[in-house]
Order: sequence, then structure tokens, then C-alpha cells
Amino acid sequence: MDQIPMHLGVSHFTTPKVAVEGLQEALLQNDTFYGPTKGTLSLRQAIAKRHLEEDGIPLPESQILITHGCKHAIHLYLQSLLLPSDEVIMLAPYWFAFPDLIRLNGGTLVSIEANPEENYALPLEAIKKAVTPNTKLLILSNPGNPTGKVYTQKELQAMADLAVEHPLLHILSDEIYDGLQYAAAPYSFLRFEHLRDRVAVVNGFSKSFAMSGWRVGYLIAPLEVLEKATDLQLKTISGVSPLNQAAAAQAMEHRQEIWKSFKEDLAPKRERVQNVLQSIPGLQFFVPDAGYYYALDVTNFLRPAKLASPYQTAEDWAAALKAQVGLEVLPGTNMGMPCAVRMSFALPDHVLESALLRLKTFLEQ
Amino acid sequence: MDQIPMHLGVSHFTTPKVAVEGLQEALLQNDTFYGPTKGTLSLRQAIAKRHLEEDGIPLPESQILITHGCKHAIHLYLQSLLLPSDEVIMLAPYWFAFPDLIRLNGGTLVSIEANPEENYALPLEAIKKAVTPNTKLLILSNPGNPTGKVYTQKELQAMADLAVEHPLLHILSDEIYDGLQYAAAPYSFLRFEHLRDRVAVVNGFSKSFAMSGWRVGYLIAPLEVLEKATDLQLKTISGVSPLNQAAAAQAMEHRQEIWKSFKEDLAPKRERVQNVLQSIPGLQFFVPDAGYYYALDVTNFLRPAKLASPYQTAEDWAAALKAQVGLEVLPGTNMGMPCAVRMSFALPDHVLESALLRLKTFLEQ
Repeated sequence: MDQIPMHLGVSHFTTPKVAVEGLQEALLQNDTFYGPTKGTLSLRQAIAKRHLEEDGIPLPESQILITHGCKHAIHLYLQSLLLPSDEVIMLAPYWFAFPDLIRLNGGTLVSIEANPEENYALPLEAIKKAVTPNTKLLILSNPGNPTGKVYTQKELQAMADLAVEHPLLHILSDEIYDGLQYAAAPYSFLRFEHLRDRVAVVNGFSKSFAMSGWRVGYLIAPLEVLEKATDLQLKTISGVSPLNQAAAAQAMEHRQEIWKSFKEDLAPKRERVQNVLQSIPGLQFFVPDAGYYYALDVTNFLRPAKLASPYQTAEDWAAALKAQVGLEVLPGTNMGMPCAVRMSFALPDHVLESALLRLKTFLEQ
Repeated sequence: MDQIPMHLGVSHFTTPKVAVEGLQEALLQNDTFYGPTKGTLSLRQAIAKRHLEEDGIPLPESQILITHGCKHAIHLYLQSLLLPSDEVIMLAPYWFAFPDLIRLNGGTLVSIEANPEENYALPLEAIKKAVTPNTKLLILSNPGNPTGKVYTQKELQAMADLAVEHPLLHILSDEIYDGLQYAAAPYSFLRFEHLRDRVAVVNGFSKSFAMSGWRVGYLIAPLEVLEKATDLQLKTISGVSPLNQAAAAQAMEHRQEIWKSFKEDLAPKRERVQNVLQSIPGLQFFVPDAGYYYALDVTNFLRPAKLASPYQTAEDWAAALKAQVGLEVLPGTNMGMPCAVRMSFALPDHVLESALLRLKTFLEQ
């Protein structure tokens, strides 16, 4: 049986034409030489302009480092910030790459679970209890991955207030799925200007711009951290391809039309999946505020909740889903949601239709 | 006064058309998604094919990791190999990025000077004396940077024999300037097949292919080290852009015509510079076997050799060269040649002509 890949971290969209045109323009200008370590000025200006226009935040280009993708931005940031024995608080579920990145850079992960039954609301009291004198950093993804949760301004304000109470605490906000929200835009953590000396944002072009193969991300960070990260980039890898940055800059300039067209495709799919999921008794899920994943809690399909179930873990369940109906999803074990899976709906219509039929068949057997 | 940039690490060539065509082909196929962590099969196959054709070495693609440039290949290799307190022997002069890369990855640099008066011949006896039980790695650049020295097969054989005597010693051969040799091709260290479990090669497309802005390099390493490096690439950055790799694969396929055309331009320039340098009494230099740099030893223009000189260091001398005649060269302090500078001749004809006039004027004043 053919496999339908609902486990992937990319959408079915190819890179927007306008981005490719940015590359072609740079090629015509023979821009094939090393670029600046920090990134091209035009891309950093486009990013700064976006934050000015959308968030009303004046952001100096000097505070922006273009990196080889968003994962690399996180890596350089953590390497610049963390010292051995530093604790890093993360809200679960989280993106699966974070635990390794934290560990590789000497940090200790302290995971705090958000409750799916409360729509993954910010667990402020639990966070407060988890902060110790060793807590260096608090990481949140907004919009969330795999949840698609967009925090309310009130939730983020509470987080900012907590940071005021703990003057040594840094905050990293991973905003890579922004632009793909279905209602209100996420409130960038950069807006808390009084915390600017302790707040960093990572972002990139892989998700909201369908440019995963171009390897362009960025880090916005306090100047001291950013200088360290830039020095590490200089010493270990050099700056990002100016050609690929030219494509990214054009994508950023045309972001509104790109996001509009992506969401016109994704919004009905999100609804369609929701309708199918709702029709399956016992399946728990959260309708994403942004992005293209559903986090499905399959507890009720595993032992002991379902005594007759052949599956004890979400891995078992996902393996059977793959083997029996050819549907690939991502088990949530390394995303801090052991009884759930991540399922992407960024697929062509006919593929999604077939996928949902298969899922229903499998779950109702 | 305008500045002539003879300090740069790139040539004046723009990326060959055939490489750009490789990119265009990939764009037509919408190859805009994440690629494999290890690199695309077609680029790894092109690299393997090159070593088979030129060196007679069968090289499995599984032993090749495509990285975000050659510096990144070195970084991942050192990070995978070195443990704290490991000593790394390097032959000076060396590429300026090596000391930081070694230090960042926990190694201790042991520098051994090659003698310019012996044409930078391999200082085998000095190396033998420097090997201790803590020596983990020996690094050589072949062709050399900044010297342009290509080691003879006999010299490399002596190095290989030394490695046999020290069964825990690893060897890293940096071969990024290969292809740009003016006589015999460098003998790749991969040819010592009996050492394959301890020999790594780093290379890339920035120099011999004029693709510095594309950020594509590669690591060929023993499988155990390569797997560690691949895991680090996966966890900290992800694989290289498949678009940029498509360009690199085409460049590799067409390497002979690219190198031929580059060398037709560079060879007369190398000779022209040699003629001018020879006409200046007291200036010591080595005619490069490969690449586009001259390493100029300016000892005789500094105090105490020249008592009336206003300059005490090569930095002073280079700063005056820049200020007085607008010629920028790279002082060799961080390349293990404190009394020398690196000077590129990969410049358009009229620029090189003007540069040589300026150099002569400055030195004969």
C-alpha cells in the first residue's frame, strides 16, 4: 500500500514564485560570493520592517542574525546563552528538536505539561513553581508545534510579568509558524519592550513561506547574546548564502499575499479534518489556531482505557496505522505528549481525502 | 584612494554557468523542500565518481557528508573527533580559521613551522618529535593556504608511514584548493587506503568552483566519525539546500572544463606577479603550486632587519600598504607566519596591473 505522509514538518506548497524571482534577480547581479556573517542588509531590513509594520516595534537590524535555518538559530542562541547546570523550562508538548538542542548546549530540560483539556492554556502556576535559582531560560513556541496553540495576549502578559519578578530569567519565543494563524495574529514576545534585554525570538522561512529547502532562518536577540552567536557563526560556518537570502527577502516583502493564499488552501482543510475527527468517539484533539498540524490524543484507543486494544503506546498505535492503512503520523513521545501523535493536514485535497478515509476506517475497526 | 582587495579568500570569478543551470533545473522540478541530512545522493555520487576517476579510489557515498561549506565540515569533524586535552598538530603556515575551530572543539593546537627557505617541505622530524600520547590529530592543507604548496607523493607517504607508527593518530587533509594546481595534481590523502579508518578529507565549492556564496562543502571521514558528524548536523542545523547542492553537483560533473578555464586566467597572473616580486630586492616568497595566493615574507622590510624601517610587524607594514597605496593584504599573524602577509592575485587584469605597480612603489620607496 502507498504511504500518505502526514508526519512531515513541511506543507505541500512549493516555494512561492516571488521568492524564486528574488533569487533570479540576485543571480543576474552575479551575487555568488560570500555574504556578510550577520546576513544581507536587505533581508535584515525586510525583517525589521515587518516587525515595525505589524507589531509597531522598532527593531535595529544590528539585533538580527540570519542563520542556516531556524534550528540553527536556536542552536547558536542556546550555545551563546547557556552555561553548564542551567535549567531550561519548556512547555510540553514541544517541538521534538528542542530537547537535543538544549542537552547538546549543556542545559537541563525542565518540562511542564500544558493540559489539552484546558486547550493548552499557559500553566502559569506550574511554571512559577518550577523556577529555581538555576533557571536560565524559558522557551515557548507561539504558535505551538505540534499543538497549533496561539497564546492570548493575557497569557503572554502573565509570562512577561513573571519575567519581571525573575530578573535573571531569559525568554526564547519560537514564532516560526506565525503568519499561518486562522484568527488573531500571535502577539510577538518582542512587543514586551521592557524585557528586550532578555527576550529572543527565532523564526524562519521553512514553514509559513514553504522554503524548507532554502535553509534560511533568523535570530533576534539581546545585543550581547547576538554578538556571541554571530561570532560562533563566523568561526564555525560563515554567513548564509546571499542568493537564498535574496529569495527570503522577497518572500518577506510579499508575506501578506503568500499567507493569504496558503491559508485559503489550509483553512477548509483544517475544518474538514475537524469534522472527521469530531465524528470519531473517544478521540481527543485541539483545533489548531495556526499552522497545519492536529495533535491527536489517542489515550482512549490504548490499553488500559480500551481494554481490548492491541496497543499499549502511541508508537504501537502509529505503527499499526502505518502498517494497516498506510498512514504515517508522528508519535509524540519526544514532543512531551506520550499518548498523542502529530498529524499534518498540509496535503493536496485528494490525498487528504484519502487520508481521512483511512484514519476513520482504522479507528472504527 | 580606492582600495584593491588582495586580502580576500575568493577569486574574481563568478559562479560557472553550468552550476547555475544545475540550480535552474532543480527549480523547474520544484526541489524546494528539505533534503536528506547527509546530502543529496546525486551530489554525493558526483563526488565519489570524481575520486574514482581521478584517484582510482572507490569511495562509498555513505562516507560522504555534505555540509554548509568547508568550514562547517571541519567544525563537525572536530566536534565528532576531539575530546578535551586532545592535541592537534598543525603545520604552519595554516588557514586562519583552524586555531579557533580547534579551540572551540576542545583541542589544543600544536603548531609546527614549515620552513619557507626549504619551500615549505614537510618538516617530518619536527612532527615526529611533536607527537605525544595526547596527539589525536594531524592536520595538513594540500594544496596549502596561504602557501599554495602541493606536497609531493613522497612527503605524503612519509606522513602516512608516521601514521602507521602511531595507530591512534588521525589525519585530516584539507584539499579545498585542489583542481587549481599549475603542475601535478595533489595526491589525495584518501589514496592511502590502509589508513581509511583514520583519514578524513574536507573540501568544498567555494574556491576551485567560485561558489563561495552557495555554502556547500563536504566531509569524507571514517564511518564512525561521519555518523557522529551527521547526527550533529541533524540535531543542530539540518541538511544543506538541495537547490544549492544541485548547482554543486553540476559543477563537479564539469570540473575539468571549469578548472581549465580558471587556470588559463590564473596561470599568467601567477607568473606576472612572480616577475614583479623577483624584481624587488629582499622580498622572500614561494611560487604557489596551486591556488591564487602568494605568501610574502616581509622580514627584510621590518626592524631589525631593516634598521631604518618604520615598521616592526607585518601588521604595521600591511596597514601602511593599505593607507599609503590602497592595497589590502592579509597579515599572517593568525596563520602561523608572523612576518609574512597573504596576497591574492585572483583579480581582473587591470586591477592586478595597478596592484603590482602600487606594491612596487611602496616597497621601493
